[in-house]
Amino acid sequence: MTSVVVAGAGSIGSLLAAHLARVADVTVLTRREEHAAALREQGLRVSGRGDFTAGVGATADPAGLPQDAELAILACKGTDLAPLAGRLEGMLPGATVMTIQNGLGAEGIVAAHGEWPLLSAVTFMSGTRHGDAHVEYVLDTPTWIGPYRGTTEEEARRVAELIEAGGLKAQAFPDLRPAQWSKLIFNATVNGVAALTALPHDFHFAETENRPDLGHLVRDLVDEGKAVAAAAGVELHDDPWEMNVLATQRGHRHFPSMLEDVEARRPTELESINGALVREAVRLDVPVPLQTAVYRLVRAREASYSE
Amino acid sequence: MTSVVVAGAGSIGSLLAAHLARVADVTVLTRREEHAAALREQGLRVSGRGDFTAGVGATADPAGLPQDAELAILACKGTDLAPLAGRLEGMLPGATVMTIQNGLGAEGIVAAHGEWPLLSAVTFMSGTRHGDAHVEYVLDTPTWIGPYRGTTEEEARRVAELIEAGGLKAQAFPDLRPAQWSKLIFNATVNGVAALTALPHDFHFAETENRPDLGHLVRDLVDEGKAVAAAAGVELHDDPWEMNVLATQRGHRHFPSMLEDVEARRPTELESINGALVREAVRLDVPVPLQTAVYRLVRAREASYSE
Repeated sequence: MTSVVVAGAGSIGSLLAAHLARVADVTVLTRREEHAAALREQGLRVSGRGDFTAGVGATADPAGLPQDAELAILACKGTDLAPLAGRLEGMLPGATVMTIQNGLGAEGIVAAHGEWPLLSAVTFMSGTRHGDAHVEYVLDTPTWIGPYRGTTEEEARRVAELIEAGGLKAQAFPDLRPAQWSKLIFNATVNGVAALTALPHDFHFAETENRPDLGHLVRDLVDEGKAVAAAAGVELHDDPWEMNVLATQRGHRHFPSMLEDVEARRPTELESINGALVREAVRLDVPVPLQTAVYRLVRAREASYSE
Repeated sequence: MTSVVVAGAGSIGSLLAAHLARVADVTVLTRREEHAAALREQGLRVSGRGDFTAGVGATADPAGLPQDAELAILACKGTDLAPLAGRLEGMLPGATVMTIQNGLGAEGIVAAHGEWPLLSAVTFMSGTRHGDAHVEYVLDTPTWIGPYRGTTEEEARRVAELIEAGGLKAQAFPDLRPAQWSKLIFNATVNGVAALTALPHDFHFAETENRPDLGHLVRDLVDEGKAVAAAAGVELHDDPWEMNVLATQRGHRHFPSMLEDVEARRPTELESINGALVREAVRLDVPVPLQTAVYRLVRAREASYSE
């Protein structure tokens, strides 16, 4: 069986590890040793859309990873990626490394720490961790994969097939940027607005009947993002406004991670999502006053933690 | 002695009532009868910059007010003004009525409920209520007063002199709009940003060293407000950006009322402050995308209370 490392066992990492463990030898790299111990002793339980417990290897020490792994998925939050890539420097010489963080720039961070062939991914699935060894599979939307450095669409397809064999949804693309940018613009807008308003991603985000309605701001933010994508030469895979409208029509009330982060007074993924979009706009000389305002406001919200 | 009614005994109403009671016959109109009873029985204590207890009349029933009052100060929050003016309809036939709410439009609301001569006021003082019969005098900045309907600067001056005789700071102006608009722009900006970021009005609001700094957004919001004032033919009395910088240099960390309101999940004064500014901009055809964004975001934050 293929040997796979999943580094980071939040909700996305846990979902990937448990499903892949049905068709591959999976070793999970955690930050905390007690988390690794719980996974080794109890396996990793999936509830919700799945109902099984998978046996996985687990370690908090990179030296304990199988050095013959063919695939390593870095599934930590964007804020943890640089230290994680640093811990893996010089290791896993035979592995293709796949990033799956929100925003832009994850591949470049990993590329600075090793010569691994790289795949890009974005995921639309969601889950809720109920403990170190239990994750609930909530939204069964797909993970999209594309080549980045030293890889081809064919390798992206093999990884997508492995993930599908494990029971999750995945698809390969010749170029991931159109999907990555669609999600970037969607995330910068929906996460930013949710973090500032304390609203889950619900009907307010698509409401445009009256002038004061929030949907006008959401659409204007999306339009600024589309102008940046166009200037970057990226033709979007999905229209982020339509993604927004569709998502608010699902019955499920989704609490974007940036809202959960500010309510728990945790660092957010602002820099790799909103910061990345605004910096691209500056580089390409595209005016984005509203995205810049949201970026500055959420950044100030993070500064309020220490008040 | 002059007979004065102070309607509304939050921090501003309490400060006015207690100080005026040293030089006038003051009757306080409250919403709750136990609040009126506490004032009648204990008097109204001032601490902080003052240290005295003043005897005041008090009632929760407008019929109990002295119908020969010469001055009535409506010191409730903007959100409570229309019902308060309604309760006073047909009463206090000899009184000049003075509004002191934040934002725009208070005078028009009162004008719709009676023929009283009207004075406009804005206040920069602040206090903290420590109970129904105790208010702390915090910032000793002035109250500014001007004529509005059926009054002259001379009458504004007499009221300012009465307030000064009581120990507070006050000044009369021939036209209050330059001061009112300065405070409107300042309040829309500082209250809105504070409510969204959870930051008290501190140094972040004036910080402009780096591109992501909040001060850039604050200055851009102020510039939009200044463009609306110019289109309305109002020459500002103070530059709201300078008001902002000065206020952040006081040692005192001020928590704007809109921030306190959203944290307590109370209705805010958004409509009479930010809503009024944005509606004036629409009427005068001045683009204010950032003020509109702040308005929509705080409005959505209020909608989150019921989630």
